[in-house]
Amino acid sequence: MKIEISSPLDMHLHLRDGAMLDNIAQCSSNSFAGAIVMPNLLPPVTSKEEIIAYKKRIKLAIKDDTFTPYMTLFFKNSYDFDFLSSIKEEIIAIKLYPAGITTNSEGGVDGFDIESLKMTLDAMSELEIPLCIHGETNGFVMDRESEFIPIYEKIATAFPKLKIIMEHITSKDSVQALDRFENLYATITLHHLIITLDDVAGGMLKPHLFCKPIAKRPEDRFALRKLAFSGHPKVMFGSDSAPHPQHAKESCGCAAGVFTAPIALQVLTELFLQNSTIENLQKFVSDNARNIYSNIVIPSKIVTLEKRSFIVPSNYGGVVPMFANEEIPFSIVDIKG
Amino acid sequence: MKIEISSPLDMHLHLRDGAMLDNIAQCSSNSFAGAIVMPNLLPPVTSKEEIIAYKKRIKLAIKDDTFTPYMTLFFKNSYDFDFLSSIKEEIIAIKLYPAGITTNSEGGVDGFDIESLKMTLDAMSELEIPLCIHGETNGFVMDRESEFIPIYEKIATAFPKLKIIMEHITSKDSVQALDRFENLYATITLHHLIITLDDVAGGMLKPHLFCKPIAKRPEDRFALRKLAFSGHPKVMFGSDSAPHPQHAKESCGCAAGVFTAPIALQVLTELFLQNSTIENLQKFVSDNARNIYSNIVIPSKIVTLEKRSFIVPSNYGGVVPMFANEEIPFSIVDIKG
Repeated sequence: MKIEISSPLDMHLHLRDGAMLDNIAQCSSNSFAGAIVMPNLLPPVTSKEEIIAYKKRIKLAIKDDTFTPYMTLFFKNSYDFDFLSSIKEEIIAIKLYPAGITTNSEGGVDGFDIESLKMTLDAMSELEIPLCIHGETNGFVMDRESEFIPIYEKIATAFPKLKIIMEHITSKDSVQALDRFENLYATITLHHLIITLDDVAGGMLKPHLFCKPIAKRPEDRFALRKLAFSGHPKVMFGSDSAPHPQHAKESCGCAAGVFTAPIALQVLTELFLQNSTIENLQKFVSDNARNIYSNIVIPSKIVTLEKRSFIVPSNYGGVVPMFANEEIPFSIVDIKG
Repeated sequence: MKIEISSPLDMHLHLRDGAMLDNIAQCSSNSFAGAIVMPNLLPPVTSKEEIIAYKKRIKLAIKDDTFTPYMTLFFKNSYDFDFLSSIKEEIIAIKLYPAGITTNSEGGVDGFDIESLKMTLDAMSELEIPLCIHGETNGFVMDRESEFIPIYEKIATAFPKLKIIMEHITSKDSVQALDRFENLYATITLHHLIITLDDVAGGMLKPHLFCKPIAKRPEDRFALRKLAFSGHPKVMFGSDSAPHPQHAKESCGCAAGVFTAPIALQVLTELFLQNSTIENLQKFVSDNARNIYSNIVIPSKIVTLEKRSFIVPSNYGGVVPMFANEEIPFSIVDIKG
């Protein structure tokens, strides 16, 4: 059996920079036609020059014209219309982090009063630049995402023309919020379709499955799966694949992030087939994104997968992937650029 | 300010065996007059000969007559009255583990129908041997303890003369269950009075705070603190201090357990003082246990603590303690045997 996917996209990806970028960038370009690259470098990406330079470094690392990195800017409420006009052609979206909520987010937003966000979000609405949000409060770890929903709703109401993407949703509360506002969209990761907190901390502690937002309860995973498998037009695949060196994961104070880039498309194929919804995979990994990000230019790339098992490597240049050393049933067997 | 504690007891302790026993046993005898030693060795302690031999090894490791190891047997539903009569003088309690629920519990109980437990629990009731239970199901990690409460209640009802100790309770549901049955008692650890899941997985992942049962929600910790600080007569301190080598904690698949033995009494003193309930510390760490375990013989040992800060070592023979490298305000300044 062969599964063909046309221009698969990863709408939420961390490529980092420097040696790590060189190390893992091709894990994404080997499977995908493009990916939205998150701007939480150190320091975060906040200027046109930085975006252009970072994109150049990514292209150098990838060496593959059939993969497009879609660039993002790190949200600041000091961005005005003129600045955003001047940068619009270089970015696909702006990513908002609450301050301190995840890796390299210290310079993010403190407080969410509409007045302080108004200048930037009005400009984004007018310029049709989507807003991607890491939606968590600093409350109790299992409640952070649900507690953020009123903030999503406040922004969605105040800026009805702004497209808002709830990034890497993990809870049934977020699933329910999605359809309450026309301008709310969502990405879902691979790992949140698979694991719950049980997999992270129910047996032995598994640092390679530790991520933010943390994996939630079985009923949350059920709601996410139902939503993703349905091909719902407001939902896109975003891996949130995040590489950390093995020693940073297996230590006292392990960093957050699951590295799924090299196996994401293969495992998604398996999941959608298992669930008898393979016809919706194309929507989840490409078509919905094309409709939501109406300004996106997508290279043509046909990726063919086949039921042919392979053993996932123990690491990619020192980064341990999800399913390391395990056998997964689907392989990419052909890519046409 | 000096705080004197008379014969402090740790009613739930893991000393392990071999080199680890030799390595960490004195961390307990340096603070406590005695401790209930858990029987989950490999293989578990299930015979009189093993108990006598294990006790001898513990005494050799401790080299201190002012500390008594109270021995326990690993629960099997095949123990009959004659066997338990013959062993009664060597043990203080029997510890029941649901099969596979924590470290070295594979030989534990599968299913909890009263008929299969009846022979052993009838004998224990008659011989007045208390039953200590690790009360977790194999459900979702945050629900396991609450899901076990109906099993506690079933056993408490079927065996009204049996003293049942709910070990290391972590949830408000267990706190509420405690007073519903006259023959239910509980231990509480130090770490569950201090941490929630936020401390384990809310920031970076902290393997040295990973334990079973896992730390729960803030409202659960609040209920535990209220109960412990009140000096409630059915509640005892049990550290559940569990040593693992550093490499087994900081790895892919970290073992469960927090090592608190060397700092438990010092930090408990701080907590009870902060909460203005220092008068109840003596009950929590000794007097309640004396009343609940009516067969206990307690050596006289006066431990004096003083407000004198010290930096907790980074490790004790390769085992990382809670608060490693941090300053804690109270020190043990005198011990009279």
